[in-house]
Amino acid sequence: MVNIAVIGYGYWGPNLVRNFAELNGAAVVGVSDQDQKKLDVVQRRYPSIKTTTRFQDLLDDPSVDAVAIATPVSTHFELGMAALRAGKHVWIEKPMTETSMQARKLIEEAERRERVLFVDHTFVYTGAVRKMGELIRSGDLGKIYYYDSTRVNLGLFQRDVNVISDLAVHDFSILDYLLGEHPVAVSASGINHFPGTPENLAYITLFYDSGTIAHINVSWLAPVKVRQILVGGSKKMITYNDLEPSEKVKIYDKGISFTDDPQKIYEMRVGYRTGDMLAPKLNESEALRVGAEHFVDCIVNSKTPETSGQLGMHVVEIIEAATSSMRGKGETVYIQKGKKA
Amino acid sequence: MVNIAVIGYGYWGPNLVRNFAELNGAAVVGVSDQDQKKLDVVQRRYPSIKTTTRFQDLLDDPSVDAVAIATPVSTHFELGMAALRAGKHVWIEKPMTETSMQARKLIEEAERRERVLFVDHTFVYTGAVRKMGELIRSGDLGKIYYYDSTRVNLGLFQRDVNVISDLAVHDFSILDYLLGEHPVAVSASGINHFPGTPENLAYITLFYDSGTIAHINVSWLAPVKVRQILVGGSKKMITYNDLEPSEKVKIYDKGISFTDDPQKIYEMRVGYRTGDMLAPKLNESEALRVGAEHFVDCIVNSKTPETSGQLGMHVVEIIEAATSSMRGKGETVYIQKGKKA
Amino acid sequence: MVNIAVIGYGYWGPNLVRNFAELNGAAVVGVSDQDQKKLDVVQRRYPSIKTTTRFQDLLDDPSVDAVAIATPVSTHFELGMAALRAGKHVWIEKPMTETSMQARKLIEEAERRERVLFVDHTFVYTGAVRKMGELIRSGDLGKIYYYDSTRVNLGLFQRDVNVISDLAVHDFSILDYLLGEHPVAVSASGINHFPGTPENLAYITLFYDSGTIAHINVSWLAPVKVRQILVGGSKKMITYNDLEPSEKVKIYDKGISFTDDPQKIYEMRVGYRTGDMLAPKLNESEALRVGAEHFVDCIVNSKTPETSGQLGMHVVEIIEAATSSMRGKGETVYIQKGKKA
Amino acid sequence: MVNIAVIGYGYWGPNLVRNFAELNGAAVVGVSDQDQKKLDVVQRRYPSIKTTTRFQDLLDDPSVDAVAIATPVSTHFELGMAALRAGKHVWIEKPMTETSMQARKLIEEAERRERVLFVDHTFVYTGAVRKMGELIRSGDLGKIYYYDSTRVNLGLFQRDVNVISDLAVHDFSILDYLLGEHPVAVSASGINHFPGTPENLAYITLFYDSGTIAHINVSWLAPVKVRQILVGGSKKMITYNDLEPSEKVKIYDKGISFTDDPQKIYEMRVGYRTGDMLAPKLNESEALRVGAEHFVDCIVNSKTPETSGQLGMHVVEIIEAATSSMRGKGETVYIQKGKKA
Repeated sequence: MVNIAVIGYGYWGPNLVRNFAELNGAAVVGVSDQDQKKLDVVQRRYPSIKTTTRFQDLLDDPSVDAVAIATPVSTHFELGMAALRAGKHVWIEKPMTETSMQARKLIEEAERRERVLFVDHTFVYTGAVRKMGELIRSGDLGKIYYYDSTRVNLGLFQRDVNVISDLAVHDFSILDYLLGEHPVAVSASGINHFPGTPENLAYITLFYDSGTIAHINVSWLAPVKVRQILVGGSKKMITYNDLEPSEKVKIYDKGISFTDDPQKIYEMRVGYRTGDMLAPKLNESEALRVGAEHFVDCIVNSKTPETSGQLGMHVVEIIEAATSSMRGKGETVYIQKGKKA
Repeated sequence: MVNIAVIGYGYWGPNLVRNFAELNGAAVVGVSDQDQKKLDVVQRRYPSIKTTTRFQDLLDDPSVDAVAIATPVSTHFELGMAALRAGKHVWIEKPMTETSMQARKLIEEAERRERVLFVDHTFVYTGAVRKMGELIRSGDLGKIYYYDSTRVNLGLFQRDVNVISDLAVHDFSILDYLLGEHPVAVSASGINHFPGTPENLAYITLFYDSGTIAHINVSWLAPVKVRQILVGGSKKMITYNDLEPSEKVKIYDKGISFTDDPQKIYEMRVGYRTGDMLAPKLNESEALRVGAEHFVDCIVNSKTPETSGQLGMHVVEIIEAATSSMRGKGETVYIQKGKKA
Repeated sequence: MVNIAVIGYGYWGPNLVRNFAELNGAAVVGVSDQDQKKLDVVQRRYPSIKTTTRFQDLLDDPSVDAVAIATPVSTHFELGMAALRAGKHVWIEKPMTETSMQARKLIEEAERRERVLFVDHTFVYTGAVRKMGELIRSGDLGKIYYYDSTRVNLGLFQRDVNVISDLAVHDFSILDYLLGEHPVAVSASGINHFPGTPENLAYITLFYDSGTIAHINVSWLAPVKVRQILVGGSKKMITYNDLEPSEKVKIYDKGISFTDDPQKIYEMRVGYRTGDMLAPKLNESEALRVGAEHFVDCIVNSKTPETSGQLGMHVVEIIEAATSSMRGKGETVYIQKGKKA
Repeated sequence: MVNIAVIGYGYWGPNLVRNFAELNGAAVVGVSDQDQKKLDVVQRRYPSIKTTTRFQDLLDDPSVDAVAIATPVSTHFELGMAALRAGKHVWIEKPMTETSMQARKLIEEAERRERVLFVDHTFVYTGAVRKMGELIRSGDLGKIYYYDSTRVNLGLFQRDVNVISDLAVHDFSILDYLLGEHPVAVSASGINHFPGTPENLAYITLFYDSGTIAHINVSWLAPVKVRQILVGGSKKMITYNDLEPSEKVKIYDKGISFTDDPQKIYEMRVGYRTGDMLAPKLNESEALRVGAEHFVDCIVNSKTPETSGQLGMHVVEIIEAATSSMRGKGETVYIQKGKKA
């Protein structure tokens, strides 16, 4: 039985408590929040959970095996480090930290203490993304030409982070999971239409050494909600529409056939191929539940999470580079080459 | 009666001949093409039209008032200049020329000779774009925050131009028509996945002095066809889906209400507003017909076309800047400031 | 403060308890169910509510003002009559009773005792149906030509009622609310594909004296879920797609213009008209909450509910007639003429 | 080389001439129409085709092998009989004749003279319907539970036939092709909303001995165009949306698993199963071309067409029965049992 304490009971904390509470092999033993009213809610719903306004109480409690941090990103590093130093396994909300330097320090601390460090990039645990990962890794799609994501809607404007950290962060984690390759450069544009607020729309292009290109279009200012990803491979192509109630992922047996024989005239070199479309049945388990089970499994069996500190750090690196490029009106920003650890 | 000769009877030429032939107040008197077989087709369909493999025959014919040029872009400048110098009014396919310098020379020649110079950016004459123009100019949308276009499909790979010249060119002309403002800078990314071929997908961001931002996503390598434009204003927002059989344009009474009063806390400063959605009835006339009528009207009444040489040149300037930025991996390229003439 | 007791804590009962519990001006004071385990759930969630396995305890309790009956339809009459005789106001789930005779007796008992009798046809309280009602009653749609509903999906097969009672019942109540007119005849077809089970798909046509025709297609055996209603009027037409996340109701300014001047040739007599499409903003309040508030208002202010016993009885009459016609392979079954009371 | 003459050059005739003219192995040698202006159009487009206002000229011409009849339905019988008696093979537009008695006489005449009698139910030759036929005949769908078609739009009101003959006729032919079984009874409802015009909407249910049920909803008075067919089988289910530009046919690996073991409780007897969805690549050849090739092949190789006189007669029988039932407000009308010849 893994005993878990949750720090922060705002927007996401209740989902963490619910999922861990319902998990076989885990128990929620404590919750902290600075707002006593929120703790009162916890008490009513879960009379057996210990609540406190001081997170240190939870870190000091030897019965706590792991800590889940669901507080604003500006506090992630400090709380994560304190938890690791107290010997706890750590689950941390996305984005992992404000800077990649902080992320690296958490990784090192976790490695030193042999603790599990899990970053909650929930999308990686959806049936849709896992199916896409299978298709890519099996070679069914062939060489990956591009990844193109549109993630727009009206609101909810964030106060402390820009739209890249809020929405594109999902694509950065999905890309790391799907491609297993780190982008080498980024070019981003964006704007804040209201003075004194973070950028509310952004367009990000990621370049990879393998020739894959990724593009992400995020906005809080669109009249319609769109959650659409296209992935193009040399053999097949995928669409993933997260708003469809069913058939979210469609696999198109479509593609370009290309011969680089310069003798052939151009029209002969590029051909089109179209075949069936398949919408595979997806695992419909709640992604957060799948992630929570995986976290407990990593603790019990000393595994590295699929959304490890490394993946979390890669995401923060891309956020940093994209934000920097955006403020330079699309100026190319290079990211240090790094293979997935 | 305006007598028109068409040069080039390939992909688009037959549409020009058909539209001008059916127009009151105009007649097609000649067609030239280097391929005699194509001229034979013209002869069978339109026995009264003079055909020739030498375009000069048409320019030398004093009964010809205007020339429509529907040849590859590499020949536009030479043919356009010859036609103007022969005293003809000129209709020229998009993009107008290979370089903005060539475009400027055509404009100057047309002004000097007081000839009409019309660039065939057909989208400007669609019911959808004209309705959007009305809404923007009437102030119904308020301040324009952004324009976001996705124009992707599988194929048709072009041999001589990249995907920007093939697809984004439509958005550049629509933007010039809608905004009446020239972008000041561009950042573009793109890639050619097959050696020796033009770029087959591209992402372009345009920056405007007024604060408007425009983004265009074009690809020949998508499994599904998308033709979707979003326009966000401070009062209302628009979607334009060109693939819908009806209700292509939808006007959302949605928006952000923002107060810049720093005394108010953040949540109070940004609010959301949602109301009705209206899909206005659009003029369903064939856009090319509307353009052809407008061309004849400009000749007869000495007017400047809505898709003038100026507009055509602006489009070429943006293609040049976007292609340059794309080859610099998103590097910002500035465009000389210019107000719509 | 209206004190409410809920009988039956199966599928729908928990929704009733939650909505009444959160309502200003009402309180849930008791819940009965034959299954003690379900009552234990109530106790944990709502410690202050009295629970009992004997509904008679609730009827005997003088502090109970109203009773909501959420038990199988075969028990509705007996429980409803007992509650009315105990002087309680009654909320009863749909369909109201097994037979129209039973419905009439409940109506008479409620009138005799001046108690409110409310039938929970929840759809009548949705923003979509209320907007449609406004449009029809204001005359905006003109004369109503037809109502056409498709309500199909895969499962959930019911054990004790056929697909008419399960799904078409919604349309019968919506029709009564929208038209304020009772059908005079019905023709229905349907089938049960599995021996010993109720009919799992059915097609019902209702005829009205005014010339309106209504058609309802219901199925538990469709591969896709559809919830689509079309309403055609002489001036405008409506579509209502309940599965759309937004813009559920669309008003088309489309129609037929008809002159009955026999002098004119046929083509001149029928013309088509198309104009704008408007998707009005709808009230997004939970329909059950709106209904619950209305029930309390009816009790406090001695009003007749919009989903009165009369409406509930009309629905049962149509179910009876449709089921009878269905078993006669479409044979016309006449319904006694009745105006909405 | 099969020499074909076309009688009637109104709405559909030009399509027949174009398709037969472009076919290898066939030639159009004559066209007749009562309107000389239409014949002038033929002359301009096809100078080598003989035109006449008297169809008898074509029947008297010994070089004519086959006649295609594209005139109003009221003339089909007379013209078809005259053509057969003149020894011609006959292609006849749908519906085949006004009465099933007339259809039977044409069949007998064709058999006596060993001529091909082809009824142009074009839908049977679409890639979509042929794929559905394959799936049903291969047993992939299992036992066919139902066929459900919606075929509605605004206009075009017909003068001489009702909406059943205009639109439902397509479903009747598709059903005959797919099921190879003739319905035993029909129940239909419908209405004409404008005095002196044919019924403009209708709902038809067909009953089959095998237990299959079919339902067809047709209207000229709907604000949106719908062309949607659902087919449910015991193993798989199909949707066919003819308005989709691609993926028109979708095969759902969904179904009900049913055990008729009465010992099991109800919930255990009915179960749901959901799996992948596949949209197979369809043959995109023009259906009329496929039909025209088939007609020529039947003539040359003495085959019976897939859309034979028998199929055409079955369709007329259903139209007769449905129209009769409709005028009896849904009254069941029995059709004589007949197996597909």
